[in-house]
Amino acid sequence: MKKGVMRPGHIQLRVLDIEEALKHYRDLIGLIEVHRDAQGRVYLKGWTEVDKFSVVLREADQPGMDFVSYKCVSEAVVDQLRDELAAFGCNVEDIPADELDGCGRRVRFDSPTGHMFEIFATKEQTGKWGVSAVNPEAWPRELTGMKATRFDHCLLYGDDLEGSLKLFCDVLGFDIAEQVLDENGERIAQFLTASLKAHDVAFIKHPEKGKFHHASFYLNTWEEVLRAADLISMTDTSLDIGPTRHGLTHGQTIYFFDPSGNRSEVFCGGDYHYPDHPPVTWTADHLGKAIFYHTRELNERFLTALT
Amino acid sequence: MKKGVMRPGHIQLRVLDIEEALKHYRDLIGLIEVHRDAQGRVYLKGWTEVDKFSVVLREADQPGMDFVSYKCVSEAVVDQLRDELAAFGCNVEDIPADELDGCGRRVRFDSPTGHMFEIFATKEQTGKWGVSAVNPEAWPRELTGMKATRFDHCLLYGDDLEGSLKLFCDVLGFDIAEQVLDENGERIAQFLTASLKAHDVAFIKHPEKGKFHHASFYLNTWEEVLRAADLISMTDTSLDIGPTRHGLTHGQTIYFFDPSGNRSEVFCGGDYHYPDHPPVTWTADHLGKAIFYHTRELNERFLTALT
Amino acid sequence: MKKGVMRPGHIQLRVLDIEEALKHYRDLIGLIEVHRDAQGRVYLKGWTEVDKFSVVLREADQPGMDFVSYKCVSEAVVDQLRDELAAFGCNVEDIPADELDGCGRRVRFDSPTGHMFEIFATKEQTGKWGVSAVNPEAWPRELTGMKATRFDHCLLYGDDLEGSLKLFCDVLGFDIAEQVLDENGERIAQFLTASLKAHDVAFIKHPEKGKFHHASFYLNTWEEVLRAADLISMTDTSLDIGPTRHGLTHGQTIYFFDPSGNRSEVFCGGDYHYPDHPPVTWTADHLGKAIFYHTRELNERFLTALT
Amino acid sequence: MKKGVMRPGHIQLRVLDIEEALKHYRDLIGLIEVHRDAQGRVYLKGWTEVDKFSVVLREADQPGMDFVSYKCVSEAVVDQLRDELAAFGCNVEDIPADELDGCGRRVRFDSPTGHMFEIFATKEQTGKWGVSAVNPEAWPRELTGMKATRFDHCLLYGDDLEGSLKLFCDVLGFDIAEQVLDENGERIAQFLTASLKAHDVAFIKHPEKGKFHHASFYLNTWEEVLRAADLISMTDTSLDIGPTRHGLTHGQTIYFFDPSGNRSEVFCGGDYHYPDHPPVTWTADHLGKAIFYHTRELNERFLTALT
Repeated sequence: MKKGVMRPGHIQLRVLDIEEALKHYRDLIGLIEVHRDAQGRVYLKGWTEVDKFSVVLREADQPGMDFVSYKCVSEAVVDQLRDELAAFGCNVEDIPADELDGCGRRVRFDSPTGHMFEIFATKEQTGKWGVSAVNPEAWPRELTGMKATRFDHCLLYGDDLEGSLKLFCDVLGFDIAEQVLDENGERIAQFLTASLKAHDVAFIKHPEKGKFHHASFYLNTWEEVLRAADLISMTDTSLDIGPTRHGLTHGQTIYFFDPSGNRSEVFCGGDYHYPDHPPVTWTADHLGKAIFYHTRELNERFLTALT
Repeated sequence: MKKGVMRPGHIQLRVLDIEEALKHYRDLIGLIEVHRDAQGRVYLKGWTEVDKFSVVLREADQPGMDFVSYKCVSEAVVDQLRDELAAFGCNVEDIPADELDGCGRRVRFDSPTGHMFEIFATKEQTGKWGVSAVNPEAWPRELTGMKATRFDHCLLYGDDLEGSLKLFCDVLGFDIAEQVLDENGERIAQFLTASLKAHDVAFIKHPEKGKFHHASFYLNTWEEVLRAADLISMTDTSLDIGPTRHGLTHGQTIYFFDPSGNRSEVFCGGDYHYPDHPPVTWTADHLGKAIFYHTRELNERFLTALT
Repeated sequence: MKKGVMRPGHIQLRVLDIEEALKHYRDLIGLIEVHRDAQGRVYLKGWTEVDKFSVVLREADQPGMDFVSYKCVSEAVVDQLRDELAAFGCNVEDIPADELDGCGRRVRFDSPTGHMFEIFATKEQTGKWGVSAVNPEAWPRELTGMKATRFDHCLLYGDDLEGSLKLFCDVLGFDIAEQVLDENGERIAQFLTASLKAHDVAFIKHPEKGKFHHASFYLNTWEEVLRAADLISMTDTSLDIGPTRHGLTHGQTIYFFDPSGNRSEVFCGGDYHYPDHPPVTWTADHLGKAIFYHTRELNERFLTALT
Repeated sequence: MKKGVMRPGHIQLRVLDIEEALKHYRDLIGLIEVHRDAQGRVYLKGWTEVDKFSVVLREADQPGMDFVSYKCVSEAVVDQLRDELAAFGCNVEDIPADELDGCGRRVRFDSPTGHMFEIFATKEQTGKWGVSAVNPEAWPRELTGMKATRFDHCLLYGDDLEGSLKLFCDVLGFDIAEQVLDENGERIAQFLTASLKAHDVAFIKHPEKGKFHHASFYLNTWEEVLRAADLISMTDTSLDIGPTRHGLTHGQTIYFFDPSGNRSEVFCGGDYHYPDHPPVTWTADHLGKAIFYHTRELNERFLTALT
């Protein structure tokens, strides 16, 4: 947190059918449905998240990500970063408070990879779901599905990784925790963090701008990844790959698709990063192992199934 | 144990190079090397096994299984079953004591699927490896690799499943714990057990006789399956599939190949079977899920990579 | 299974208040309530059990165990063993079919330690709970509490361990899997099995006859033991000890009390036993470690809180 | 990381016999011995730590902690904080570079609870132990004992918690993640963090100044906590309590003692904290559950065995 950006605050995803999507995000992944707004958007969160919501589903004709938004420590930080983003060359848009119910004003900006991002500092805090604020139990007994604990990060595909790195590191104070370099030393994947986590956002180089690869939710254990895999099978959900481990970050993971074709990940584990750590580097000749540590080869879907 | 056959006692595998094979079975899977005989065969065991050995590696020009051998409660049982095997129509061969060092006489017999099996009752007991017989610790600190606990079962491919079922159930007292039936009700896979385990031997229908699919070794936990997967990757071992779960038996598993092309499995969990339990049935239209519960599809290798 | 006795079939426990007991056995341990009979007894089972029930709760003025009953492979075995039990000197009583709804006739007999046991061969089979008999999923999504899979065994305290050993091994065909010997070589604990499990019944030497120490239920993993511990805390249930590991059997365990003072155990793991294995021996000077492997000391409660 | 302090950098512990201590910290806990200096001090680290060392053992007549030291992002931060510490009233001492081999200059200061702390910004980076900096494997195959991943935090006992809170939060930029309040709302325990971790240092109120409760090392899983417990038993190490879970932070833990009487902890899991999160509060009437979630009572040793 070099410049006051703390963490991913929320992601807004487009889904083709909101009720079908809820079977996925609420009943299967186990996010808590906390609100529906006047536009029909549904707000959800993982049970460990203190803020009111972290996932917003919007019904639309095309799947994909509308934007992902990062929470800052103060409104003053938002003001400061707003100026720096504009100076960097971003198109900056002010989104008024309560455009998302319970959330303060947000500053939205475009990016060299063509994705829309936001920063904000104020959101209603409703506390962890299902446990008391005082003398809290270890976990709520009422969780369902995969019992995802939080929205953790997203992975985005786009062309200008260098520009995106400058934006996130120089302007927003992220660090590069992990990267893949090709034979010319050019970065083809970058995992960026604002804290101790292995990634708060990740990018993979891709000729098209603005593509969404997956939203990721955190589980506590490898046994929960197994149970997530079982649930994917029990519910006839479309599996991408897993259970397996990543080489990058060494997290343990499974990928699958929501009914609209958006990819989801649930994972556990993963390395930690401090600002004084050099980035962990994988080389492109080991790209298969970097992504899927056990099979050591990419499946075609990983590179092409994007929304 | 309806007729005195207790469990798989040992399996003899053909490997192209014994030292390369030891890197696989001893260093990677973590079996204990306990002996080499005058013929150059190497004897190994899992650390929890009380008998002297359970795996014999023989250097040969072709990979595959020479035979798998089942231990009976007494020599009287061996005599009795020898007669019944002959009456069933098996070609029965008497193998003298110490043909395998430390093992008593064995009765070898052929089978409708073209595999060679044995029964025996006497083998030197050296106790669990690395722990005391009195006041034993929970596990030995000196284990390596995947720390496999025991040789658990093998899966064989052959044509005459009906004949094989009669041989194992009617003559040897096994039960059918799990099966796959095709649309005509014909059995295309059968998992047979002499005890509480989901399988002590398994067969899948295949046009050729006498093919070997895999030898399987037991791990204690799903976390150990993950570490096994990691070790497969670290040692550049050829992976077949996993970590995943089977539908049949619901065990958690990973498949990989020894340097000679023989398939190995390490797994944990798995359902239990008692003699009064009806067999668990999977239907051929769910064959993918029966074999690989998460992907719900067979990989071609599973059906064709045989030794 | 040397003489046709397969496994623990059911246990009947006395509880002071049936509805309070159900909060413990059904809601907390996660057994399935399957039936109430005309006497007001409640029948339950673990979800993996194929037979209709395995636990019967009876409201009474004193807690404790009425009897524990073992299932045989056939009525002929029951007849044969009935004769042998009588010849051994047991008082044998014939309990007619349907004294427990859905269960065939039982043969009840007393024992040198003063406990009541039964054998039977017939019980309604309703299949595993919550999963299909054909193409079964890995587990039912509707389980609650600790999700116990089965009634596994009970531990009984009594005086005449030698007599009890003869009864179970010589008459009923059990093996002694594990034992504790005092400095004179006298057996002060014996763990007996009819199958591969480390124990189907266990006895600890105690001056009084007929005391009940605990009923034990099987979990799949050490993580489930943790969650069981969490649930014990969340429900303000009286904890005895755990999570920890036993030295004997090396199972991973937690002990706690039902509202009537009967002790319950949930556990996972544990060593396996075959009939040709010598018993595992612990010596009395290591009794603390034999019982509680980590603390290496007995808590007073373990020896004195009996029903 | 509000003011540039990143994490615990190293702790110097006094032990009565260096070689005995190494059996504990290196062979049992599994830290890597990386260096011995001219004074005979031994330097160790967890394998995931990028810096050269994190634990220093010094032979002395009395056990306990000499100091614990926090790493800052830059020397400029150290300069700035040095001034602020002096202004706060700390006695500040400049320790020259290489007083600890491989470490830059440190600023040492006393504290209201009587403990000695340090900040520093420069230390030799030798990378994670046993894995390559490029294309790193998931873990090194050569680890021993408990395979501790890093020095995580320490817990200190002292009188002036309010002063200590001001020092760490106001001067050093820590947050209060968790606390225990007595019936008068007075803080009797405080868990402070410079990052996402539940605690980078913790304090419990105690009439004496400057007491050391334990140094804690991070494991990856609850299964590793079990194996740690097993190793404690196998090595006849003095156990304090565990395996169990804390209420505070909800981490899964085991406590034990080094041969000099210093308490060690290994643990996994634990909640996360962001700067905008209100502190998690436990009340003193739930103190037992706050510390030991399962037993819900303190053992006397936890409060009195200090060094």
